[in-house]
Amino acid sequence: MPTPRISFLPPALAVLTLIAPGQAPSVARPPGGEDLAAMYRDTAERILDAAMKDEEGWEKLTWLTTVIGNRLSGSERLEQAIDWAIERMRAEGFDQVVRQPVKVPHWVRGEEGAWVIEPSPRRLPMLGLGGSVGTSEDGVVAEVVTVASFDELDALPRSAVEGRIVVFAVPWEGYGRTVRYRSSGASRAAAKGARGVLVRSATGRSLATPHTGALRYADDQPKVPAAAITLEDAEWFARMERLGRPVVVRLEMGARTLPDADSANVIAEIRGSERPDEVVVMGGHYDSWDVGQGAHDDGAACIAAWQALKLLKNLGLRPKRTLRVVLWTNEENGLAGGTGYRDWIGDGVKRHVAAIEMDGGAERPVGFGLGIDPAAMELALARLRPIGALLERIEAGEITGGGGGADIGPLMREGVPGLALRTTGEHYFDWHHTDADTLDKVEPENLRRATGMLAVMGFVLADMEGTLGG
Amino acid sequence: MPTPRISFLPPALAVLTLIAPGQAPSVARPPGGEDLAAMYRDTAERILDAAMKDEEGWEKLTWLTTVIGNRLSGSERLEQAIDWAIERMRAEGFDQVVRQPVKVPHWVRGEEGAWVIEPSPRRLPMLGLGGSVGTSEDGVVAEVVTVASFDELDALPRSAVEGRIVVFAVPWEGYGRTVRYRSSGASRAAAKGARGVLVRSATGRSLATPHTGALRYADDQPKVPAAAITLEDAEWFARMERLGRPVVVRLEMGARTLPDADSANVIAEIRGSERPDEVVVMGGHYDSWDVGQGAHDDGAACIAAWQALKLLKNLGLRPKRTLRVVLWTNEENGLAGGTGYRDWIGDGVKRHVAAIEMDGGAERPVGFGLGIDPAAMELALARLRPIGALLERIEAGEITGGGGGADIGPLMREGVPGLALRTTGEHYFDWHHTDADTLDKVEPENLRRATGMLAVMGFVLADMEGTLGG
Repeated sequence: MPTPRISFLPPALAVLTLIAPGQAPSVARPPGGEDLAAMYRDTAERILDAAMKDEEGWEKLTWLTTVIGNRLSGSERLEQAIDWAIERMRAEGFDQVVRQPVKVPHWVRGEEGAWVIEPSPRRLPMLGLGGSVGTSEDGVVAEVVTVASFDELDALPRSAVEGRIVVFAVPWEGYGRTVRYRSSGASRAAAKGARGVLVRSATGRSLATPHTGALRYADDQPKVPAAAITLEDAEWFARMERLGRPVVVRLEMGARTLPDADSANVIAEIRGSERPDEVVVMGGHYDSWDVGQGAHDDGAACIAAWQALKLLKNLGLRPKRTLRVVLWTNEENGLAGGTGYRDWIGDGVKRHVAAIEMDGGAERPVGFGLGIDPAAMELALARLRPIGALLERIEAGEITGGGGGADIGPLMREGVPGLALRTTGEHYFDWHHTDADTLDKVEPENLRRATGMLAVMGFVLADMEGTLGG
Repeated sequence: MPTPRISFLPPALAVLTLIAPGQAPSVARPPGGEDLAAMYRDTAERILDAAMKDEEGWEKLTWLTTVIGNRLSGSERLEQAIDWAIERMRAEGFDQVVRQPVKVPHWVRGEEGAWVIEPSPRRLPMLGLGGSVGTSEDGVVAEVVTVASFDELDALPRSAVEGRIVVFAVPWEGYGRTVRYRSSGASRAAAKGARGVLVRSATGRSLATPHTGALRYADDQPKVPAAAITLEDAEWFARMERLGRPVVVRLEMGARTLPDADSANVIAEIRGSERPDEVVVMGGHYDSWDVGQGAHDDGAACIAAWQALKLLKNLGLRPKRTLRVVLWTNEENGLAGGTGYRDWIGDGVKRHVAAIEMDGGAERPVGFGLGIDPAAMELALARLRPIGALLERIEAGEITGGGGGADIGPLMREGVPGLALRTTGEHYFDWHHTDADTLDKVEPENLRRATGMLAVMGFVLADMEGTLGG
């Protein structure tokens, strides 16, 4: 979705414009790994001590998920969450707190439902897919055709699909592969004349839990309504198909897309003591889907990054470079926050020495994954490992190649090294984009660990001699 | 709920009336444990060979859960399931197949929903409790008061409860304890003037999954509508209460209780070759709640017992006593099937030498639990253990004290030894009474194991010298 370029530059960023284009960040090599670990050992211990007894992060996450709740782009709740964070960050006294305006897509779910009409009536647990068009008031009533893959769909004659609702009862092959059916199933089915689509939720485990998420319509196909059904019902449709039993479904969706809405990235920073124009940025996305509480995806990350900055401030730790937290808006259905941030910093992207995103949930963290130009990978990993060693005390020091995040993608594509906070990832996709993504699934201890990790990693990257990239 | 006494006696049972009251079943002692195991070893091997390669049971369970679906008392689907079983059992050629009429309570859910109205509107996943009254068309709109126990409710002044919706955000203390709030929460809250009740689902794990189940109204309190909410939302209400944030909820339920409906127990048997008037009965309940597919609760048990009888018939194995399978109706909300069966056999209860119920789901089975007069327990366990030894090959031979089942309760209360098929029970209460109780949660191998276990145990108990009781 198109994102307007933000021309406004707040005072903190104005400094960037004073630096001649092409002027590179400090390139002095960091000391050897052992020395780096030794140099920051005491600081890291102080940070982790503070993080592991921190109560304030949990209190913030409780407020965000409980009193505010989920935060879809365009919703009042997202803006309420932004206002709350800005106000509280200002009260906390960071060097700079910025509300960076971003226009975001505004999709609303409306009333919705799906029912088996024949052979034996029942309601289907479902969630319309983000970005889907709605149905007419009468809904779409049609016999279904159930397929297990795009190949199966492609092999069907058009007459077997036309006028029907296509059910994608696909296997779980991990999120990355199975999510294709959510993303492009609607247009693939519409290309053969389908009137609607039901797609197996992108999860490997279910307790009758539908998972929403964004679809993408192809420009050259009719837009047909699409909803996620549960794993249980997808398997039921598949069995009915195998048994040769026709099924008629009614799909009703009040979904619609309104004009773009006002939203904002939330930015707070500790100004660097020596090279304030060089920036380490870290954060998560503040928006969520309109279900659950947006706890693992991605509220906990936002609070962990924010609280990491707060703990550094409490400890009086000011790195040489600027350490900035961004709570990006609109990751889920537009990426206007990530794109808008990159636009907003303009030429300053060259002085972003690292970007850290946490967007894989707040299960027990294990370390960081690095995304960087392959040619630079080996050296960068060697520089990161001693920082990882500082996190061994909380068993979160594993440094691996491969990492990044949607919101920092625009920075990484311009060469900024990107880090992802990695967790055990045991249950993330059970909860992701559902009513089950709630605070009760977050362990306070894991929020503390993530907070400590971001504080240590953010601080050292912002303070050390040299960078990951050179 | 009152269950009419069934006076009809089908031909198969007429024989019972020819036996003088007080005439006891065979009381000859079984041979010693080792001998019993040795005596039935070859038979058990043949049975388990057949069970572990059986495909027909899975095909039946697939049909029951897929083409028929869930089976609430009073529903067309339950009667369709009964018709299907009777017809198929007759085609299979059992010695006797009986459709034993039973009148059952007829509760219907109707349309329902619950919404947070204030502070921030959203829909709550919910399921009305079985037997609940409905609301008016406008629903109940009220501020909630959230409690964590009956003690907390009791400690509140009436003014804090009157006119409100009480939320029971109670801890998970295992099904047996936590289910009290579902059963009697409505009347406990109504006693203090509550207008409605939301109760945490009786489960320890949730993916935003509400669990229905029966409530019981106290005779001396107003009947107020009651629904189950998810674990996630119960915890949310508790946090809002702790934060002192008022919550207003709208509860709409179209639930109502219609006049009792016609249903039936399904009965099939292999007549005993020597003492046909003595009976071993085994089965599960055929009804379910009106959600999911009634797969673990309790369709798989019904199919396992039925298929066990079928395999014995296929193998030409006819025990000395009659071995009978009963698919009881209406276990979930009335127990009219279990009570009706006991009434139907009349004095024949004295010649029921054992009753086996499987109603704990079809996870991996581990053995049998025995419920019997404590004075007889030691001897009965000693007699059962060699039968258990016959099941060691499928690791399902553990024999323990304590067991029974709701449907065989009326028999056990009159002295019939009762056995429960026991499983690992790892996830049963995750699925129980939800849309997630579906065929995909059943492992075909475990259905085969249960089938083999019931066939071996049923056959030996029906064939051996002596009984568990004497």
